[in-house]
Amino acid sequence: MTDVLRHLAAALSPNSILTGEDKAPYLTDWLGEFKGEALAVLRPSTTQEVAQIVRICREAGVVVVPQGGNTGLVGAATPIGKTRQAVVVQLGRMNAIRKIDARDNAALVEAGCVLARLQAAAEDEGRLFPLSLGSEGTAQIGGLIATNAGGTMALRWGMMRDLVLGLEVVLPDGQIWSDLSSLRKRNVGIDPKHLFIGAEGTTGIVTAAVLKLIPRPAARATAWLSLTNLDAAPAFLSLAMEHTGGAVDACELIPKQGLAFACSHVQGARAPLSNEADWSVLIEISGPDASHLQDTLMELLETAMMQNLVCDGVVAASDTQRQDLWFLREAIVEGQRLAGYQIKHDIAVPIAMVPDFIREASDLVWKIKPDTLISAFGHIGDGNIHFNLSPGDNTFTAALSESVYRAALAFGGTISAEHGLGRKKLKTAEDLDAGQTFPMDIATLLDPIRGLNPLYY
Amino acid sequence: MTDVLRHLAAALSPNSILTGEDKAPYLTDWLGEFKGEALAVLRPSTTQEVAQIVRICREAGVVVVPQGGNTGLVGAATPIGKTRQAVVVQLGRMNAIRKIDARDNAALVEAGCVLARLQAAAEDEGRLFPLSLGSEGTAQIGGLIATNAGGTMALRWGMMRDLVLGLEVVLPDGQIWSDLSSLRKRNVGIDPKHLFIGAEGTTGIVTAAVLKLIPRPAARATAWLSLTNLDAAPAFLSLAMEHTGGAVDACELIPKQGLAFACSHVQGARAPLSNEADWSVLIEISGPDASHLQDTLMELLETAMMQNLVCDGVVAASDTQRQDLWFLREAIVEGQRLAGYQIKHDIAVPIAMVPDFIREASDLVWKIKPDTLISAFGHIGDGNIHFNLSPGDNTFTAALSESVYRAALAFGGTISAEHGLGRKKLKTAEDLDAGQTFPMDIATLLDPIRGLNPLYY
Repeated sequence: MTDVLRHLAAALSPNSILTGEDKAPYLTDWLGEFKGEALAVLRPSTTQEVAQIVRICREAGVVVVPQGGNTGLVGAATPIGKTRQAVVVQLGRMNAIRKIDARDNAALVEAGCVLARLQAAAEDEGRLFPLSLGSEGTAQIGGLIATNAGGTMALRWGMMRDLVLGLEVVLPDGQIWSDLSSLRKRNVGIDPKHLFIGAEGTTGIVTAAVLKLIPRPAARATAWLSLTNLDAAPAFLSLAMEHTGGAVDACELIPKQGLAFACSHVQGARAPLSNEADWSVLIEISGPDASHLQDTLMELLETAMMQNLVCDGVVAASDTQRQDLWFLREAIVEGQRLAGYQIKHDIAVPIAMVPDFIREASDLVWKIKPDTLISAFGHIGDGNIHFNLSPGDNTFTAALSESVYRAALAFGGTISAEHGLGRKKLKTAEDLDAGQTFPMDIATLLDPIRGLNPLYY
Repeated sequence: MTDVLRHLAAALSPNSILTGEDKAPYLTDWLGEFKGEALAVLRPSTTQEVAQIVRICREAGVVVVPQGGNTGLVGAATPIGKTRQAVVVQLGRMNAIRKIDARDNAALVEAGCVLARLQAAAEDEGRLFPLSLGSEGTAQIGGLIATNAGGTMALRWGMMRDLVLGLEVVLPDGQIWSDLSSLRKRNVGIDPKHLFIGAEGTTGIVTAAVLKLIPRPAARATAWLSLTNLDAAPAFLSLAMEHTGGAVDACELIPKQGLAFACSHVQGARAPLSNEADWSVLIEISGPDASHLQDTLMELLETAMMQNLVCDGVVAASDTQRQDLWFLREAIVEGQRLAGYQIKHDIAVPIAMVPDFIREASDLVWKIKPDTLISAFGHIGDGNIHFNLSPGDNTFTAALSESVYRAALAFGGTISAEHGLGRKKLKTAEDLDAGQTFPMDIATLLDPIRGLNPLYY
């Protein structure tokens, strides 16, 4: 047993340290693209234990890798552990929902709480926590904050950043920075919490958060629609936003190829319309009044058909039918995974540019590998397209991704919309100058403040 | 002419430098609480000119004070100019609306653009820029970003921070940092724009921004309601949010004393109900369908009356009536100003705590100065109360403010919700430990990242 492990054992509750075979699940990512090594996997029970871990490891020069539900797609939670010794700090034990305050529309939760548990707890109090994504049964709040998660409902309710009111973080030096406030408005200087949200654990380890809740919508209306063509997608979205007064919770673009992946490989997946269009959308609106909502959706469909944006459609008549449509949406992802080797991308471009981007990127891909199957699906409402490729094998992976990324950047887009950079895209971001870099060395940024602004004289 | 003025004259377009009497309006704040001195008031025409100003002044050791519409309430845009020489950089000439993109729901504007002009330009394209506040006819976009402005519609659409997609800033060393992107999602590391939003000009000068637009609501419904008592306020808000599915654009708390100030001192201000309640609310909801909206509001009133939250009310039957109600809301502020010496506060507490805070703070105030008139009004939807005092004279100003601030902090609140700190509250924030401080010296925060996270190895 090394010194550092002995110190960690003394600092943590019993049975908090995995050092044997049981480490394995934490040393590879969900997609199996990244593997690493670690001295140990640590499972702290309190924020103080996390702080101790950081202090001990910092002293010993051991790299600390925070990990939540390990559902990330870019390898940000997998240690390398070769050039330097590392530990994984797995936050799953710190999973308490400390408070759901319905009057204040706020929840105080620990980092290891699984998203679906928070959703259920909010629902019990007549509230909605409006973040929703495929991995919600496993993904944890801390990881979702560290990666600024998006998902299907970001269109209406924002990304994780927009839902965080307060935060508690263990800093790189082991100090605890705690600001677990539920205030909606507080202008007292630069807001430090944004230094941690979306930072992928590089500025600290999120240990707890206060999150926004909203009143649970009494009703939802959901439809699967065949678009006349790809160009109809942004126009339909625009119409839907205007027609519903912004009550669109989700608007997902579905390509024929995605549906084919789902129906071929996922048990129970069946196309909802007999005549499959090249492009479909799954739209969901919500509100307080079920019958008014259903009327609104029907009127929207009629208008969209008259405007020649939509040519066919089915409206969910029951919650079961609604769930079937969402099952199919998620089956698109699972189906492509089961279909064999794939290359995932997580592009965003300005919403109006989505059709042009998809055409351009598809052409570039087919020039490199003509038989590549492309499933360009996702959150059209945010301009966020998962431009996922099934090229058969990994011969041209680097060239294919680079083409897709270059096309995205050429349209004013990004190589990462909601997944983050992680180990997977950090170098690409540097090579393509596509990362978000600080405007200047942050140390020199804040120093001159005192020279710039009279507030401090 | 000093050296620095000669350099500035060489760098700027003709007629960009005020050095005489014409400086005066820029050297005092709107409330007349702060006055300062400056070598010159500079009126740059381009971002490059702003960058030149910063470089020249930095070289010469001259303090640079950015100023927008000069409508701030905390003296953040007024130079001191005594201990060190200062210039005011007034951004009003850089006022172009470069683009309104209805398909992308985004506007690209320069910092000096007045808010009301942007609102009107968005409306022309069938869009809404949903920030609204009393000074919108004068306040400029750059200042609104630098102070993270709130206002009456923040409840539904967020504060300025939530509406900024992209930003261009001149940094303290004169570099231009430009990220004028309209992307809704982009996770490529820490998002630097939050270092500038709400920073009150301490980290750079905002020169342009890309802002979110939303589809313009087809209809609004507005009502003025008498609450049964103060405790009914958060309960009514909660009911309204649930009943409308979150479609509440604004919910403003109005005290009898506020109404008295308005009706006594502002021409044309008249109470909308014959029997004035101690507490009223002005509520506005919006949506795509006028008749459904009106029905929703009427049902809300009926339910609120049945639940004994509301005892009387008037619904605006026309846009003129709606405007009259909003005129009255703004007249509360103007009326108190005209009534004589006042002390303004900008408190937020958790929403459910608002009644307790108002009672507690009122008791504390009256213990110090029993004849003080209190108008506690504002954005109950955000827990944001302008707890404004008319104590007759300034004998006890410091003690009164400190009591109010201590009460706010005791309820988990803040001494500044939407106005910022400025020269007015910086020392108070320090004394009461009520400021948002960085978790640690930022220079040491980012250095250890490389030790904490494997992404960088």
